[in-house]
Amino acid sequence: MAGLSPSPSFSLTLRLELPNRAGSLASVLRVVADLGGNLGPIDLIEQTRQTSTRDITLEATSPAHEEAIVHAIKDLPDIRVLNVYDRTFKLHQGGKIRIQSKIPLQNRSDLAMAYTPGVGRICQEIAQHPEQVYRLTIKQNTIAVVSDGSAVLGLGNLGPAAALPVMEGKAMLFREFADLDAFPICLDTQDVDAIVTTVRHLAPVFGGINLEDIAAPRCFEIEQRLQEYLDIPVFHDDQHGTAIVSLAALYNALRWVGKTLETVRIVINGAGAAGLAVASLLQRAGATHLAICDSKGILSHGRPDLHPSKAVFAVDQMGTLADALVGADVFIGLSGPGVLTPAMVETMAPDPIVFAMANPVPEIQPELVEGRVAVMATGRSDYPNQINNVLAFPGVFRGALDCRVKRLTTDLYLAAAKAIASLVAPQELQPDYIVPSVFDPRVSKAVAAAVGQAARDAGLAGC
Amino acid sequence: MAGLSPSPSFSLTLRLELPNRAGSLASVLRVVADLGGNLGPIDLIEQTRQTSTRDITLEATSPAHEEAIVHAIKDLPDIRVLNVYDRTFKLHQGGKIRIQSKIPLQNRSDLAMAYTPGVGRICQEIAQHPEQVYRLTIKQNTIAVVSDGSAVLGLGNLGPAAALPVMEGKAMLFREFADLDAFPICLDTQDVDAIVTTVRHLAPVFGGINLEDIAAPRCFEIEQRLQEYLDIPVFHDDQHGTAIVSLAALYNALRWVGKTLETVRIVINGAGAAGLAVASLLQRAGATHLAICDSKGILSHGRPDLHPSKAVFAVDQMGTLADALVGADVFIGLSGPGVLTPAMVETMAPDPIVFAMANPVPEIQPELVEGRVAVMATGRSDYPNQINNVLAFPGVFRGALDCRVKRLTTDLYLAAAKAIASLVAPQELQPDYIVPSVFDPRVSKAVAAAVGQAARDAGLAGC
Repeated sequence: MAGLSPSPSFSLTLRLELPNRAGSLASVLRVVADLGGNLGPIDLIEQTRQTSTRDITLEATSPAHEEAIVHAIKDLPDIRVLNVYDRTFKLHQGGKIRIQSKIPLQNRSDLAMAYTPGVGRICQEIAQHPEQVYRLTIKQNTIAVVSDGSAVLGLGNLGPAAALPVMEGKAMLFREFADLDAFPICLDTQDVDAIVTTVRHLAPVFGGINLEDIAAPRCFEIEQRLQEYLDIPVFHDDQHGTAIVSLAALYNALRWVGKTLETVRIVINGAGAAGLAVASLLQRAGATHLAICDSKGILSHGRPDLHPSKAVFAVDQMGTLADALVGADVFIGLSGPGVLTPAMVETMAPDPIVFAMANPVPEIQPELVEGRVAVMATGRSDYPNQINNVLAFPGVFRGALDCRVKRLTTDLYLAAAKAIASLVAPQELQPDYIVPSVFDPRVSKAVAAAVGQAARDAGLAGC
Repeated sequence: MAGLSPSPSFSLTLRLELPNRAGSLASVLRVVADLGGNLGPIDLIEQTRQTSTRDITLEATSPAHEEAIVHAIKDLPDIRVLNVYDRTFKLHQGGKIRIQSKIPLQNRSDLAMAYTPGVGRICQEIAQHPEQVYRLTIKQNTIAVVSDGSAVLGLGNLGPAAALPVMEGKAMLFREFADLDAFPICLDTQDVDAIVTTVRHLAPVFGGINLEDIAAPRCFEIEQRLQEYLDIPVFHDDQHGTAIVSLAALYNALRWVGKTLETVRIVINGAGAAGLAVASLLQRAGATHLAICDSKGILSHGRPDLHPSKAVFAVDQMGTLADALVGADVFIGLSGPGVLTPAMVETMAPDPIVFAMANPVPEIQPELVEGRVAVMATGRSDYPNQINNVLAFPGVFRGALDCRVKRLTTDLYLAAAKAIASLVAPQELQPDYIVPSVFDPRVSKAVAAAVGQAARDAGLAGC
């Protein structure tokens, strides 16, 4: 990965003891710069007559790069490396969420109201009037983030325990961006029936179910069966969150290049949950020229191996991703690292739009085609135009829970995509600004409002 | 329930508009006093030339009593009741716990470390080194509070939604008393196999399973099967929490009356989960004269109807609770409201000990036998000597998680009971002080330390 940009996800803090001598700190900084590390804060921890202790934070491009930098610093004369810690590992230590009490428990009277005997009256009220569970418990604001660990990020089937850091992160995002309480549920089974049954059984506590990192095609059946059974919204974020934000970004990218969704040729690489959901929502939004590729090439009528979920998107053209891309206007990648080459991009139509959303490493590093594409977007937070589901799912659930929506539909997703796109005003639109920042506080409110309005229009709002 | 004490669980705040005239507030307070209400804070909200607006908080004995007081105040001339709110309902509104992020998410760099792409490295670390889930996720400090809603408090089979306020309350207690993160899981099934399977499937996120308010006898099988399968501690609090605290209280009550566990005659009323667990732990601690009653009377060899879980405690004596109590030293009630009469208490041995732990209404109101028992305890927070599980379960799990205990045993429960009892020093022991306050900050630490030590002694500690 030479030539890649240093990233906060490979971030170290080194505690160094340096002699108080002109040039000793400079020698460290030179090593970091020569090796391509990105310097962050430099803090002075302690100073004696002979030595200074400093914390130096830097970003590298990979764990190997981190090690190379640390070794080079250790080789400097008179400089002692007292401690090295990986900031990402340190940040995840002990987990990233906690459960807090909303009310004080400081005396017997608090206890008698919050717990026994007072709580008994609340239980009886709910037993007699079941809808009161929405008023008197956490259900009104609580989301289950459910995974079986079968498709963790782009990393594959890592299992439920290894999926937990992602689900905790998701819970953080629900809190930060929509003031929702979300809790990770990582299931020790990858059987469709078992997942459906387990989630049904634990649903009473939750106002919504966010499915996450569950492999295709079983994610489709799980979502559909759960939504048929439960009267709370079920949303597979890898599908619909990705589709909503991709569509929002595409609306604005097409505005920038002056093309229309109805006429452009779109190639989607990746026929997993996300790729198929993006294809489906794009079609619903009006796209007509759509080719999808999986690892074996274009989903075409000539292929006998296609699962029904893929077959519905089959086209006449046969061939590879490279074949599909010749003359295409848009590439949308939801696949794996490095599968798109600069040579393929060269064959696309003028003003090509490239969304390289594989995580953590995109289909093509943006640096490799800088200036040769009209609009570039990735799934990463450390490049511009991040096609990040966090633009969609917090607002979708905020709107759904506020309006007591019992199920989500494609119309609601379209409304969400339009709301996100509309937050980039015409005079603000730029090749590196086609979607609002994930930190734009208007986003989840706008999405929630749009979802709520669409739900009311469709008669799906419960209150 | 005439003659009962007003309780915080029936607590109202009334907003009143009173004329600025001598005696108008007094007339309100007189009504409250005459009707037996307990006055709390009186706040002045606003004052004009003609009127004052005040919030008056009071405690009643029941909802009917609340209503009677409000009506009497409404009947007073020139006094307007602007608003009445039930403080217990208000406190539970929207639920009692929230999920918080432990680390800030304020910029792209935070996001890149906490979520994608940085989190991918954490996932891979756990996939490669499974034990790292204890270091890098919430598992190390997180408890599932699991119920099927089949035995909610003493109220019966109210179902999962109505059980949720109790499970939220339990989560608050875990936070408050042991700094543990606990999350409520209320299951929409009461089938043993389904409960076991569901809890097994969701176990990866949790460091321990607290079973709660699950009816006997199926709670026994559920606990046993889960503990056989899972490598994290499983603890049915209604059984073992109750047993630990009851034993602790009994140790000290017997110390006060100068009797010994080995020689006293003990009658347990209630052969549900709690009653049988108390019986079992008392036997393990050395009790020999034990009779248990269910709704049909003494569990005796002559009864053909006994479930195996009850049959192991059968004795030769046959008869009713009243029969069992003649000459008994100790009554332990884990049954229902008002089943113990003052007349029955009169037949007990000198210096009778009465633990009336039914919730929310005890087997006998303490007021009815005041001065006629040597030691009285209840399960309520608004009387002295509260036999409250909160003295046990936070410390048990704190100790178990700190020492990575894979399963809990009776020896660990005995150690916990002794630790609780020992916190009441000989010179402090009084009939109304046989257990430490639930707010005594030493309790969960002492229990955790005792459980950890016992686990190490037994070779059950994982770290």
